[in-house]
Amino acid sequence: MSGNRAVAYKEPGVVEIIDTDYPTFELKDGPGVNPANVGRKVPHGAILRTVTTNICGSDQHMVRGRTTAPQNLVLGHEITGEVVEVGPDVEFIKVGDIVSVPFNISCGRCRNCKEQKTGICLNVNPDRPGSAYGYVDMGGWVGGQAEYVLVPYADWNLLRFPDRDQALEKIMDLTMLSDIFPTGFHGAVTAGVGVGSTVYVAGAGPVGIAAAVGAQLLGAAVVIVGDMNEDRLAQARSFGCETVNVSQGDPKDQIEQILGVPEVDCGVDAVGFEARGHGKDASHEAPATVLNSLMDITAAGGALGIPGLYVTGDPGGIDDAAKHGSLSLSLGTGWAKSLSFTTGQCPVMKYNRQLMMAILHDKVQIANAVNARAIPLEDAPRGYAEFDAGAATKFVLNPNGYVKA
Amino acid sequence: MSGNRAVAYKEPGVVEIIDTDYPTFELKDGPGVNPANVGRKVPHGAILRTVTTNICGSDQHMVRGRTTAPQNLVLGHEITGEVVEVGPDVEFIKVGDIVSVPFNISCGRCRNCKEQKTGICLNVNPDRPGSAYGYVDMGGWVGGQAEYVLVPYADWNLLRFPDRDQALEKIMDLTMLSDIFPTGFHGAVTAGVGVGSTVYVAGAGPVGIAAAVGAQLLGAAVVIVGDMNEDRLAQARSFGCETVNVSQGDPKDQIEQILGVPEVDCGVDAVGFEARGHGKDASHEAPATVLNSLMDITAAGGALGIPGLYVTGDPGGIDDAAKHGSLSLSLGTGWAKSLSFTTGQCPVMKYNRQLMMAILHDKVQIANAVNARAIPLEDAPRGYAEFDAGAATKFVLNPNGYVKA
Amino acid sequence: MSGNRAVAYKEPGVVEIIDTDYPTFELKDGPGVNPANVGRKVPHGAILRTVTTNICGSDQHMVRGRTTAPQNLVLGHEITGEVVEVGPDVEFIKVGDIVSVPFNISCGRCRNCKEQKTGICLNVNPDRPGSAYGYVDMGGWVGGQAEYVLVPYADWNLLRFPDRDQALEKIMDLTMLSDIFPTGFHGAVTAGVGVGSTVYVAGAGPVGIAAAVGAQLLGAAVVIVGDMNEDRLAQARSFGCETVNVSQGDPKDQIEQILGVPEVDCGVDAVGFEARGHGKDASHEAPATVLNSLMDITAAGGALGIPGLYVTGDPGGIDDAAKHGSLSLSLGTGWAKSLSFTTGQCPVMKYNRQLMMAILHDKVQIANAVNARAIPLEDAPRGYAEFDAGAATKFVLNPNGYVKA
Amino acid sequence: MSGNRAVAYKEPGVVEIIDTDYPTFELKDGPGVNPANVGRKVPHGAILRTVTTNICGSDQHMVRGRTTAPQNLVLGHEITGEVVEVGPDVEFIKVGDIVSVPFNISCGRCRNCKEQKTGICLNVNPDRPGSAYGYVDMGGWVGGQAEYVLVPYADWNLLRFPDRDQALEKIMDLTMLSDIFPTGFHGAVTAGVGVGSTVYVAGAGPVGIAAAVGAQLLGAAVVIVGDMNEDRLAQARSFGCETVNVSQGDPKDQIEQILGVPEVDCGVDAVGFEARGHGKDASHEAPATVLNSLMDITAAGGALGIPGLYVTGDPGGIDDAAKHGSLSLSLGTGWAKSLSFTTGQCPVMKYNRQLMMAILHDKVQIANAVNARAIPLEDAPRGYAEFDAGAATKFVLNPNGYVKA
Repeated sequence: MSGNRAVAYKEPGVVEIIDTDYPTFELKDGPGVNPANVGRKVPHGAILRTVTTNICGSDQHMVRGRTTAPQNLVLGHEITGEVVEVGPDVEFIKVGDIVSVPFNISCGRCRNCKEQKTGICLNVNPDRPGSAYGYVDMGGWVGGQAEYVLVPYADWNLLRFPDRDQALEKIMDLTMLSDIFPTGFHGAVTAGVGVGSTVYVAGAGPVGIAAAVGAQLLGAAVVIVGDMNEDRLAQARSFGCETVNVSQGDPKDQIEQILGVPEVDCGVDAVGFEARGHGKDASHEAPATVLNSLMDITAAGGALGIPGLYVTGDPGGIDDAAKHGSLSLSLGTGWAKSLSFTTGQCPVMKYNRQLMMAILHDKVQIANAVNARAIPLEDAPRGYAEFDAGAATKFVLNPNGYVKA
Repeated sequence: MSGNRAVAYKEPGVVEIIDTDYPTFELKDGPGVNPANVGRKVPHGAILRTVTTNICGSDQHMVRGRTTAPQNLVLGHEITGEVVEVGPDVEFIKVGDIVSVPFNISCGRCRNCKEQKTGICLNVNPDRPGSAYGYVDMGGWVGGQAEYVLVPYADWNLLRFPDRDQALEKIMDLTMLSDIFPTGFHGAVTAGVGVGSTVYVAGAGPVGIAAAVGAQLLGAAVVIVGDMNEDRLAQARSFGCETVNVSQGDPKDQIEQILGVPEVDCGVDAVGFEARGHGKDASHEAPATVLNSLMDITAAGGALGIPGLYVTGDPGGIDDAAKHGSLSLSLGTGWAKSLSFTTGQCPVMKYNRQLMMAILHDKVQIANAVNARAIPLEDAPRGYAEFDAGAATKFVLNPNGYVKA
Repeated sequence: MSGNRAVAYKEPGVVEIIDTDYPTFELKDGPGVNPANVGRKVPHGAILRTVTTNICGSDQHMVRGRTTAPQNLVLGHEITGEVVEVGPDVEFIKVGDIVSVPFNISCGRCRNCKEQKTGICLNVNPDRPGSAYGYVDMGGWVGGQAEYVLVPYADWNLLRFPDRDQALEKIMDLTMLSDIFPTGFHGAVTAGVGVGSTVYVAGAGPVGIAAAVGAQLLGAAVVIVGDMNEDRLAQARSFGCETVNVSQGDPKDQIEQILGVPEVDCGVDAVGFEARGHGKDASHEAPATVLNSLMDITAAGGALGIPGLYVTGDPGGIDDAAKHGSLSLSLGTGWAKSLSFTTGQCPVMKYNRQLMMAILHDKVQIANAVNARAIPLEDAPRGYAEFDAGAATKFVLNPNGYVKA
Repeated sequence: MSGNRAVAYKEPGVVEIIDTDYPTFELKDGPGVNPANVGRKVPHGAILRTVTTNICGSDQHMVRGRTTAPQNLVLGHEITGEVVEVGPDVEFIKVGDIVSVPFNISCGRCRNCKEQKTGICLNVNPDRPGSAYGYVDMGGWVGGQAEYVLVPYADWNLLRFPDRDQALEKIMDLTMLSDIFPTGFHGAVTAGVGVGSTVYVAGAGPVGIAAAVGAQLLGAAVVIVGDMNEDRLAQARSFGCETVNVSQGDPKDQIEQILGVPEVDCGVDAVGFEARGHGKDASHEAPATVLNSLMDITAAGGALGIPGLYVTGDPGGIDDAAKHGSLSLSLGTGWAKSLSFTTGQCPVMKYNRQLMMAILHDKVQIANAVNARAIPLEDAPRGYAEFDAGAATKFVLNPNGYVKA
């Protein structure tokens, strides 16, 4: 039980594989650990040998230097693992279990956890409600793009797969349960998607694709995905979505060609604050573009699910307003249409069991939809670079060889 | 516009094709018309030339003589038609529209209609809330197993299909929107079916099949259908359901073989008061069997959707209690598991538009699932007889030749 | 049946009593009538003799010249009346009924009406979903600050009071059912107010007061109302609310003094686009102030109900962005807290019957809470002026003497 | 820390104060302890010095000999206490906290707990989902009608009051949070009570009274309580309810006299399986009376909340069917009206925080409503006897003198 190879953020544009300590049942000081969390005992935790751990679009915000992430921060909040040790307070999770880890860390004891709002747990991040592994300003819990990782409150947080062999066989689908599949699904749910809905998903990255898959699973009649990356749009079409290339103009017109009407019932923002303009403005950032567009193309009475991340400050923002996280929104458009809006982290635990059931019973093929590809841990830097360059691929790190070729 | 050939109930076991009057915008006296409804003006109505009209399992209760239905009652509450005349108060529905008629007649003006509870409209049936075409004790609105039929409150009740040619092309699916598809779907919805649910549907007749299809559309992980008719069970397997033959013993054991656990998340009763026993009791009626069984096999915290009909009196009941509509229910079993129960007619209007969207965009194949077969109006007696004998078929009457061979 | 005295908008700051035509069952051309609505037949309408009709804060936007309202537009969308004539298509509403008119005009036949979204009816306003009496760009339906008014789709729109004498006795409460009571209540409902909630209502005008009353009726533990008008704050305190004077600084600090924590569960924006700044910025408009403040003071996981009006264009806006209806919103703050937002007109019909029941059974005293005062129709100009000057009073016009001194 | 005086069941009709062991962090063998639970370690537990512990109507089922409760079973599941010791796994609850204990014991780790269904926790009762302190067939957790009691999973289960002095001042209200207030409230919630509802509550014992209080808190327009005990009905009238004496005939007629219509929107069964008949049948048990009556008097589209206990077997049942927990229900009546039904234990944790807020902010006076009276622990036998005899009183045991005269 010596070391623990892990993916760390070094500087804007650079991630590296580093040697770190094997986890113990204590949160030790390190890059980005909140002082109030240093030395926190974790007898309720479990140590996992990582089965898979995915590279997420939200990691890219840090890697691009759009945050205050410190050097040597170990990345990774999309984690599936095998339990190799449990703390003395763990009662139900057992060594040998194959488990999915919700990216939001939560205590299972506070008011918000009791109300299924695990994305804003009150007890894990001294700065504010909500936390995640390997993420800046989230309390300092060590990331899981590593051979081993500590998960606190293991009995509460971990979703155990019912059968080990079955789990490993479907691992490329199940690995999406830690974040993007529930996150995309939450986007669809909060956009009000139901049987027969027409849906527009802004963004064809993995979360957008997952939102589209989620919308289909919820019974949507038509799912339209918009992006300006043709490879990603092709990926969306591969499982039955309609697509819109927003670099070719206002999505409204293209939606009208598809549906006969220029509006959809439900809108999902799977882009967030690094949005770019539409049509001839597609080459530069315009952070309010997606939300203003969604208000325009969502029909009166509709809803917007907003899993795409918006921040309170963005050092790399295009102007002063953006640097302070202010967006110029045409709220009057939304008001006239009685729209509603749901923001925030997906509370993964609210959805992961049911989505696991859908995967285990072959009702959904999320791995194919997002074009999941397993790569060795050592190849993480390449994965980050290709993903940032717009590859229509979801990279799954395979640190311990559980995923077979 | 002389006559109007129609299917009428004559006596227990006998239906015949009779000549009736072409409808006018008034509810005239006739078999089963509530005196308080006689002479009611219907300027808000539309007269339809029937495109399709289906034989329903609930019609069979009348035809078997289990009700007080009067001789010459024109049957039929599952109606799709082409508008050929509109009353002077009709503003939005137009002659030539192809429309689906919700089987529950509703006014669109009362408190219940305003709350989407169109199955218990307060203004159409003088006896009690709720009404239907061609049904005993429902106010006397003339049935639609005929060449022409009057639909009151047409602007409110009718669902217009967006395109005539598309509608006629998919008519065998769309004809299910008037009753069984929404009714089965309502059973699934009120049983709490969602993404990842495990579901047991009692009964593989058309409503049970529609409930199974509805459960799949809602994202269920596993749908198990129970019946004692092997043809109907084969029909359920044809689109991916698991099945249980209840004549071979307690469904609980068979469910455990399928799922690994003897309970499901959600239970649907698509049988109703003419239920028969399970296992060696399968040969005789036992009206509480299905509900008691569902309480047994639905897991704690689950819900039961009960679209199957229960009546307040049943002249053909097996004993005094059954004749008075009393069931001997093990409610303690349900209480210990915190189950909930939803009964009653499906409020079709709450679902028909969204299910139409799913059909029009090829997300569901309800006609294949229920093995829909079009037959001429004149063949209705044969359809009733075969359906009553247990044919795994949904009979669709084709009175005006809209359905092509 | 000669004339019809009515309150009309003349020019910024000026309303006058004018002579207009007694209504007929047709929408005739006139100031602000959409050409597509001119000549529209209304056989489904009822003509009311106005019992009461209130001056609303949203009328003030027009009177202040912040809209494109045309000269001689007859104002008034808060209407209670006695039915004096019904059109030939009216079946259930009778002459002599005392009725409340939801300010949103709706058809009762379209998809949105069927889904209880009467604030965005598709059939009454040729420009866009949603309509109202006597309001700019709402289709041209004539306002009700008059002796008589026409209500279309009377069977659908009108809420009949069960007893005439009881209705007239409680008329000062019941008159609030046409708009502000449901509107405030909708703000509270969409802010997620339930038993035990802590609530902050921005704005102590009539809608803010109604939101506070609504929050109490929903069981809120603490309701805090913020404004900068001390008379209005005193009014809020009169029925048990806590108050915050936002001219004295950030409401967050004052909330902390009241609750011990600086955040509430639920936030209601009862101010809208003409908001002014807080603290030392209280003297000038700052249209995003209220929404940004609510995101700051609503706890993670909370919701914002936004009945306050936001517009798509405001000729009187403080800058170019405001003129185009753009607000600079710190959405990242809301996102980090997983807040949700509900905007738009209140669908009055969803709430008015239940609020009527609460009034008739003395569970709520809305007239006292908003300090309702009846004045003659002729005094409307004075009412507008005093209300605009900040009177802590809800003015109720009494055109036909139904309200006794 | 020697002994622990406690109330024990001795034989039908007899409870006594006995000496028991002071609790430790282990569930030891004893009367009624499930063998699979014997020796269970409870490092996550807290030991409370009992502040208050109430006698509950469901205790009476055991004391009357209607269950298989073993001799010397320590009773009591309505517990409020001061934390005097915490186990090594307890992180957030502290010695000295004044806390309310939900009567349903739950683990905070299983699927049901994560879904707020703490009444059917999967990990605390080896027999079946759901558990409670001091109750037959509930796993064997020792009752709290004692000086001290062990609470497992303390961080999850305990509701901490924010201020000790305030808590002790309002203790007679707060003591109702452990069971009857949430249980009655749950009955009202699941009966669909909202603002403006008309409600009938069957049973004026403490749960019925709490349901009535809950209905008022939810905004009901009229709450009618039915019983045959005039003292209890007087208690219901004391806080504004209407009442019906069911010994004087069918409640339907009396409801019509009160409301003008013979039906209510919402029905609550706060009686359960030991129901007696109505009118001239009021002198003997008739276990289906309440449910059949509620189906009769609840309007179409309504809902029934059923907090009253129904059992799977009743050795003291009036006939064979009753002994096996079978009820003869007129389900057809409910089906024709599209009623829904919710059964089972109240999941207290879903409601206790919000009801605590309502109490702490003086929005509700539950102690007065149920006529709470504190008595010494030693007087428990008298309390049981008086309560069983129909006293309109809720008895609160005061084992450690926290409640001052």
